[in-house]
Amino acid sequence: MRWARFERNGAATYGIVEGDEVQPVTGTPFGEWTKSGGRLKLSEVKLLVPVVPTTFYACGLNYEEHIRAVAEKVGQSPNLPTQPDVGYRANNALIAQDEAIVIPHDATDKVQYEGELVVVIGKTAKNLSEADALSCVLGYTIGNDVSERSWQKQDRTLWRAKNTDTFKPMGPWIETEVKLPDLATKIRLNGRELIQFPTNRMIFGVERFIATMSRYLTLHPGDVIWMGTEGETANMKHGDTVEVEITGIGTLRNPVVREGS
Amino acid sequence: MRWARFERNGAATYGIVEGDEVQPVTGTPFGEWTKSGGRLKLSEVKLLVPVVPTTFYACGLNYEEHIRAVAEKVGQSPNLPTQPDVGYRANNALIAQDEAIVIPHDATDKVQYEGELVVVIGKTAKNLSEADALSCVLGYTIGNDVSERSWQKQDRTLWRAKNTDTFKPMGPWIETEVKLPDLATKIRLNGRELIQFPTNRMIFGVERFIATMSRYLTLHPGDVIWMGTEGETANMKHGDTVEVEITGIGTLRNPVVREGS
Repeated sequence: MRWARFERNGAATYGIVEGDEVQPVTGTPFGEWTKSGGRLKLSEVKLLVPVVPTTFYACGLNYEEHIRAVAEKVGQSPNLPTQPDVGYRANNALIAQDEAIVIPHDATDKVQYEGELVVVIGKTAKNLSEADALSCVLGYTIGNDVSERSWQKQDRTLWRAKNTDTFKPMGPWIETEVKLPDLATKIRLNGRELIQFPTNRMIFGVERFIATMSRYLTLHPGDVIWMGTEGETANMKHGDTVEVEITGIGTLRNPVVREGS
Repeated sequence: MRWARFERNGAATYGIVEGDEVQPVTGTPFGEWTKSGGRLKLSEVKLLVPVVPTTFYACGLNYEEHIRAVAEKVGQSPNLPTQPDVGYRANNALIAQDEAIVIPHDATDKVQYEGELVVVIGKTAKNLSEADALSCVLGYTIGNDVSERSWQKQDRTLWRAKNTDTFKPMGPWIETEVKLPDLATKIRLNGRELIQFPTNRMIFGVERFIATMSRYLTLHPGDVIWMGTEGETANMKHGDTVEVEITGIGTLRNPVVREGS
């Protein structure tokens, strides 16, 4: 099942996507819901981020080639994690499908994409084993962990490098029928594929992260976990369009503009 | 004005505190509200965290003596910030007035309090000057940034050290009439005062943080900014009660229990 969140009569509404249509529901996929009748053309609704996270988790460094590449860019030695320590991103930075990534006027040219699998939590969970970890997952969506590399190097935290307004595109929807080992992530800039990698080739997988995290923290419906990205990343500039496709889920697409251009 | 959030008929309700009573309202202090009639004894309502943050910001290192003390504890050299880079905490860890801080069974004895001023944002804000920064503030509450120092030293992020469930007491309410230079923070363990400091003696003050942050991010109603703590901190153990008082705001009080004790 594929859950979209969209604007209807000025309010956020969930709906079930079938082909190029969406059937609105009353309620949300995180609780009770019923179809409210009717079908809308997907092309005619304004998609919103599929969930506003209660807590916005991000694994950060979780693919080996990417860690080596970023370390080189920021002038530090690569630091491969020895245990799954999760980090955070911020809701202010979220934008939806087709909304513009806005590069601040004082950013350098090193504003780069990072295409990521996003786990959407559907049920309250504590102390899950790895075997049971996926039982709390509603489904998966896609995130673009946009990063300004000079700020990432220079600031004490990642607030500006990764959480400037518009730096966290997420969408287009939540897909509930996913087999993690089958997924492939493909990132395209202006239609040209720059990287493709097996989505599940992580240092620590979804099950391991959920099991480790839930020993110390309660996962709640609406929490998201961004699982990190692989490989080298490239600069995006004014006028570009960036797409992150994860096979079986969909394609997250956003234009890029520079403030004042 | 003093805003409490409390449980009423199973739902979260805001109310205005006057003396030892609270007057419930319909609506919230972040939008429109009207008094819904009646008065309740504060001692008879279950206080909730005064807001569930949209984004949960934390300044971290923002008082000089504390930075030197923590650096010594975790075996690193003190790193005084040269610019206000904000960080994050997580909603899963929030607890309200009188709720227990639960130390996990595998934590060390180094579980410590950090008493902090919490800024509660009331209005959407972007690009505020320092002179206008406080115009987006609804009021102030109190936070206890509970920290497990061995995990703080050992993990790649602060997720477990600072965001284990129950490690973020916040409350008891939001006070809107505050003069920052007049505030004093006092921390007591089992009634004994361990530290007292001028709350506003920060490396970067509230105005500077809001002005800097809002250059890159939009502040939203319900966001909170925890402003950091001063001085050395001490261990808390099973059976303790920790209190953080900020004069003119109130006293945040929480018992401490160790899992399995």
